[in-house]
Amino acid sequence: MLPEEERNVQTSSGNVDAGPLVVPVALASGGYEIHIGAGLVGRLGELCPPKCGARAVLVSSDRIPAEYADRCMTSLRAAGWAVEQLAVPDGEGAKSLAQAERLYEGCLDAGLDRGATVFALGGGVVGDLSGFVAATFMRGIAFVPVPTTLLSQVDASVGGKTAIDLPRAKNLVGAFHQPALVVADVSTLSTLPAREYLSGMAEVVKHAAIADEGLFRQLEGLGGRCLLADPSGLARVVARNCEIKARVVAADAHETGVRACLNFGHTIGHALEAAASGWSLRHGEAVALGMVAESEAAVRLGLASPEVPTRLRDLLRAQGLALHVGSVDLVRAHAALAHDKKVVNGRLRLPLVPCIGEVTITEGLPVAELAAALDGLLRAGA
Amino acid sequence: MLPEEERNVQTSSGNVDAGPLVVPVALASGGYEIHIGAGLVGRLGELCPPKCGARAVLVSSDRIPAEYADRCMTSLRAAGWAVEQLAVPDGEGAKSLAQAERLYEGCLDAGLDRGATVFALGGGVVGDLSGFVAATFMRGIAFVPVPTTLLSQVDASVGGKTAIDLPRAKNLVGAFHQPALVVADVSTLSTLPAREYLSGMAEVVKHAAIADEGLFRQLEGLGGRCLLADPSGLARVVARNCEIKARVVAADAHETGVRACLNFGHTIGHALEAAASGWSLRHGEAVALGMVAESEAAVRLGLASPEVPTRLRDLLRAQGLALHVGSVDLVRAHAALAHDKKVVNGRLRLPLVPCIGEVTITEGLPVAELAAALDGLLRAGA
Repeated sequence: MLPEEERNVQTSSGNVDAGPLVVPVALASGGYEIHIGAGLVGRLGELCPPKCGARAVLVSSDRIPAEYADRCMTSLRAAGWAVEQLAVPDGEGAKSLAQAERLYEGCLDAGLDRGATVFALGGGVVGDLSGFVAATFMRGIAFVPVPTTLLSQVDASVGGKTAIDLPRAKNLVGAFHQPALVVADVSTLSTLPAREYLSGMAEVVKHAAIADEGLFRQLEGLGGRCLLADPSGLARVVARNCEIKARVVAADAHETGVRACLNFGHTIGHALEAAASGWSLRHGEAVALGMVAESEAAVRLGLASPEVPTRLRDLLRAQGLALHVGSVDLVRAHAALAHDKKVVNGRLRLPLVPCIGEVTITEGLPVAELAAALDGLLRAGA
Repeated sequence: MLPEEERNVQTSSGNVDAGPLVVPVALASGGYEIHIGAGLVGRLGELCPPKCGARAVLVSSDRIPAEYADRCMTSLRAAGWAVEQLAVPDGEGAKSLAQAERLYEGCLDAGLDRGATVFALGGGVVGDLSGFVAATFMRGIAFVPVPTTLLSQVDASVGGKTAIDLPRAKNLVGAFHQPALVVADVSTLSTLPAREYLSGMAEVVKHAAIADEGLFRQLEGLGGRCLLADPSGLARVVARNCEIKARVVAADAHETGVRACLNFGHTIGHALEAAASGWSLRHGEAVALGMVAESEAAVRLGLASPEVPTRLRDLLRAQGLALHVGSVDLVRAHAALAHDKKVVNGRLRLPLVPCIGEVTITEGLPVAELAAALDGLLRAGA
């Protein structure tokens, strides 16, 4: 189902300490590169030199350690950028039109013009919101995400999706806007709260499940060990994940076809997220639950091998994901499922994993089948 | 400067009464058609049939006669659309993030999904705002403008630009989003206030000035006569204008190159609009003043024939444009000029008309030259 693969991570020496790994993302409109390595926030200006007189803002949040932002600002200014720092509040609530308006005003105050750049230092919230602002300020200016969570390094910063939330639904307003460059510093992951790290690990498992049985087995082989103890191994896993996602995105920049494969686990995942009180369920935790539930539905429908939900559940638990639904409101979860933006005329196309490492798009699946899987998850307490 | 021309208006009989004129707009992503004729609002559903079960909203404003919206709704429902009507307030103030949020909520209430369509019945405000909402709701759904002003028929609804305003600057937030179809009903122009009609005529003169000396002479030949008295002649002029704009847009969908030609008169025009109290200057009136002032600057710099500002001023006045600056705040006009989104590092590229029917892009013009032209316009009382 996924396009033919080419291993194309480039590094001059094959050694992560010698320089960042570079994953090229090919697009009809030209493409961009993802640079992955340790200590890159302090080299941001060098990796992304300004055009003469270019202006920029660096958007970050209270959640990000100030030293990362300081290193970015120092590096950008040393390289010649006229850059101002903007802050957004912590958490999913910041992905609002009100915060977008604050950032637009901040961009105006910083004198940004069409030649300017928005740098986004942080996780998915900062990236989604800043990316939307970059996509729409003056109908689109350059955007450079500097993702600082595992989830945003392997997922949210690759592929050009930007979004903000409406009170009734997540990511309902957005735009496709490809970055000029992505700089993923794996050193920043060491200060992540454990739950955030694990939430990202769920997406790593997702990429392995849909596209790379070898990576899945490699992760199974870790047992309970954590990749954070091995920065160069972690950089290679992040790069491999970016490569998988980049391959899919390159084949389908606007999510009309094969890119839907990346939504494995996300249909039920998003419904759970929307229904969890106060966004208490992390995105990756919701996706982990979604992958298990959607695979169990697929097994019941004869569309997947019974080992798929079993191996998924075992690997996710071994890596530390608790697989608890938490305080999910069933009525809200069903309403969110019905409002899912992939639903067209009461049915949806959904990626399912028939066996580990492969993915197929199932057309016209009635939403009711997923609603039943959701109920099963909640009854079982997952 | 403009790309080579092909006359490609299509009509089965050559007679506007027998069916709409059709101007195809070719784009890398597939393109769309502009249908132009009399009485088309009552045939909207027939011109744009729904896919099975498709949902839609029709956005309009208080300014639009209710009978046009009623005819659209009747026609769309007869064709099988599940369509709800949404209203926005009258005037430029409606191009706000707050109104965009109201429309997003309205789209959710109407059950719109990714297969849905936003129809926009009205002038530039309704089209810009609704287009921005269509561009960003679920990261982009189908958009069908039904422009009801001369300005939006010949300009705002062709080319995929959508925008909203921030309090400090017009059109500062937006997206490029190509329509699925444009339906321009010239009958709706007969109920336009005269000032709105004339504002559109300024853009018609602009298209003739940059691309079609024959059309310019034809308009000069009208003397004081108004095209509204001749609907099929009006439809042909609208179609010719769409053709000129479509040719430029097809060559440059994202305004990185030749499309800048369409901004003739708009740099000073936008500054005047931003500085006129309460948006009291119409867009076309501002562009008319801008074309004259920018051409006078070009003559002073030896970049244009002296007949250019003279013929422009004479034709615009003959068609009824008063060329008054009204109550423009000079300090605000200069500030708006400095904030123009085309300014990169204190200079801008600007389209100038060296002789009627031709246009060239002048690179690196200092903003100061335009500031002087602006001052001249204000001193002269235009």
